[in-house]
Amino acid sequence: MNKMIENLEELEVGYDVPAAIGMDESEIQTPCLVLDLDALERNITKMGDYAKTHGMRHRVHGKMHKSVDVAKLQERLGGSVGVCCQKVSEAEVFARGGIADILVSNQVRDPAKIERLARLPRYGARTIVCVDDLKNVADLSEAAEKHNGQIECLVEIDCGAGRCGVSNSQDVVSIAQAIDRSPGLRFTGIQAYQGAMQHIDGYDERKAKIDTAVAMVKEAVAALEEAGLKAELVTGGGTGSYYFETDSGVYNELQCGSYAFMDADYGRILDKQGHRIDQGEWENALFILTSVMSHAKPDKAICDAGLKAQSVDSGLPFVFGRKDVEYIKCSDEHGVISDPEGVLEINEKLRLVPGHCDPTCNVHDWYVGVRNGKVETLWPVSARGKAY
Amino acid sequence: MNKMIENLEELEVGYDVPAAIGMDESEIQTPCLVLDLDALERNITKMGDYAKTHGMRHRVHGKMHKSVDVAKLQERLGGSVGVCCQKVSEAEVFARGGIADILVSNQVRDPAKIERLARLPRYGARTIVCVDDLKNVADLSEAAEKHNGQIECLVEIDCGAGRCGVSNSQDVVSIAQAIDRSPGLRFTGIQAYQGAMQHIDGYDERKAKIDTAVAMVKEAVAALEEAGLKAELVTGGGTGSYYFETDSGVYNELQCGSYAFMDADYGRILDKQGHRIDQGEWENALFILTSVMSHAKPDKAICDAGLKAQSVDSGLPFVFGRKDVEYIKCSDEHGVISDPEGVLEINEKLRLVPGHCDPTCNVHDWYVGVRNGKVETLWPVSARGKAY
Repeated sequence: MNKMIENLEELEVGYDVPAAIGMDESEIQTPCLVLDLDALERNITKMGDYAKTHGMRHRVHGKMHKSVDVAKLQERLGGSVGVCCQKVSEAEVFARGGIADILVSNQVRDPAKIERLARLPRYGARTIVCVDDLKNVADLSEAAEKHNGQIECLVEIDCGAGRCGVSNSQDVVSIAQAIDRSPGLRFTGIQAYQGAMQHIDGYDERKAKIDTAVAMVKEAVAALEEAGLKAELVTGGGTGSYYFETDSGVYNELQCGSYAFMDADYGRILDKQGHRIDQGEWENALFILTSVMSHAKPDKAICDAGLKAQSVDSGLPFVFGRKDVEYIKCSDEHGVISDPEGVLEINEKLRLVPGHCDPTCNVHDWYVGVRNGKVETLWPVSARGKAY
Repeated sequence: MNKMIENLEELEVGYDVPAAIGMDESEIQTPCLVLDLDALERNITKMGDYAKTHGMRHRVHGKMHKSVDVAKLQERLGGSVGVCCQKVSEAEVFARGGIADILVSNQVRDPAKIERLARLPRYGARTIVCVDDLKNVADLSEAAEKHNGQIECLVEIDCGAGRCGVSNSQDVVSIAQAIDRSPGLRFTGIQAYQGAMQHIDGYDERKAKIDTAVAMVKEAVAALEEAGLKAELVTGGGTGSYYFETDSGVYNELQCGSYAFMDADYGRILDKQGHRIDQGEWENALFILTSVMSHAKPDKAICDAGLKAQSVDSGLPFVFGRKDVEYIKCSDEHGVISDPEGVLEINEKLRLVPGHCDPTCNVHDWYVGVRNGKVETLWPVSARGKAY
């Protein structure tokens, strides 16, 4: 359940919430998500400054954090223009939470979901969705008219992810034309996110992939112009590529998400100078706080963060700031930490950097915001579980 | 948030809940968890009959489903004696939900968690916990006395999982003696769960691993008797091994979980006759219902169940009852389904059997119980997110 929280005071620490405001970090109930607020604010400000300096709109990816509070911090400190997210149920949470410009960067096909999408403008939110199939257009138009609101549409180009999206400019134009002539809809531009290349380690390999994407997008924009249609928004780009989209001369909006929190998998990719991006470009701001709860073997400590506290799809977490111990195995409720020198104590707390932040955040209910070793804030993972 | 649900009628389909009672399966909002109630009931009854026939107590593993409703069905149809679970926060949910015999099959070391554990008897629940460190005993005793309730303790033996638990009979006896002389505590027996072997495919390989475990347990029981202590409960055993513990002559309680739902990883292991256990011994009762939401490539359908709808730690899901299509790739919100003949339609629903049921259930808020193609019930995943 993710009803809006009326009163934090009513929530019981350890049952409903992992911490209370003012508590020492050492008292937080684990496992839980901890945000280093200083690092988070620096990441958000840095990306905001980049976008501003380079004249790009920055639509932050809300599917990463699923938090209204983080999205509002990104507006305030990073000048973001709104969010993108992947599901209508997420968009509802952001719209109810007061985010004014929302792109569902995905296809919406189910009749009930289309109905709910068409109700989003009632919350005052600019509502944008992606389309990759001519057959989708009539359904969207009918729902928009029924609810007397406008749905803006982007045609999605598959520029390498191999999932949704059309593959050639003729399809872009024919879908855009259908949108343009449909009541209740507005053709707004192009969605072209090269998701598959974000996690390629080498800078030059990533650049080669994005060059192909940029070429496809440029061709589509030209074909649209020839057909008398203007792509007001050309949107895409992630934490591993935003400088390429910015330099492309054709994108005008970025969709970065992971830069704000960082994770182990993203952290490994290299910047232009060959440095890991978590060693200078971005800071680790998100951690799974965990406690040692068994040390019956002298060289292995068992901690309380397993598969119910994180997703290991992109590899295991690493222990932040420690070279002497290593997270080596993950089972449902336990993590095995190699501790060859037996330095870890029972109840000692460790900060884990998760392998993949997005699905890790999705298994938690709360972010515990910490500054100078004290709990400063508790933010609900507002759209946690909103997968439909 | 997992407050008790007061009134299902107040919940909005598509926002709060994925379905309404009486709905056709085709109308359910996806992705979501669907339970085939007939298959679930047959699995539960079968394991219950086995335990009864063989004179074993069956303490079902509640950490698998995290559902008070499923636990109560297991009591009613399967004659289970209560639940085990892995975290105090889970135990609280089961105790508040009326489960009367609860084992936290894990160590509890954090002072705040010990405090909460000691409050469980107030709900009327027999409260049992595992111990693998002499230093834990005094803390448990102090909390039990403070709250004027009894905490029963099992000494945990590590019989192969390589996580928590002591490794020799001397440690078992010395911890048991400390428990026995501590006010507020009662020495109740031995926890010996061979978790690491449950997923070994071959029956004989699994048997060899359990033989070692049984030998350790027998030695510990004999050493306890020599010290004048009786292990009233000797508990362990999972879906891949329960017949071995039953035949051991030393275990008297089973802790099976996955048999009720089944999953792709467990389903692959072989029974004595060399058949997959999901092809006769147990039925697939748990599914991730998903919808096709893009088919822009002729040979690939994109469905709406990705990493936010499941855990892929033990491999990808398979598409139930279909040989013509295959789930081949999982990203945050999408699944790529190979559809070489292009048979799948937009909005077509598929039932996926998750790779690993436990962490998959933990990302959902609801079980949608289906019988004869209609939604019969909605059960909250009561302890979803209760990882602390």
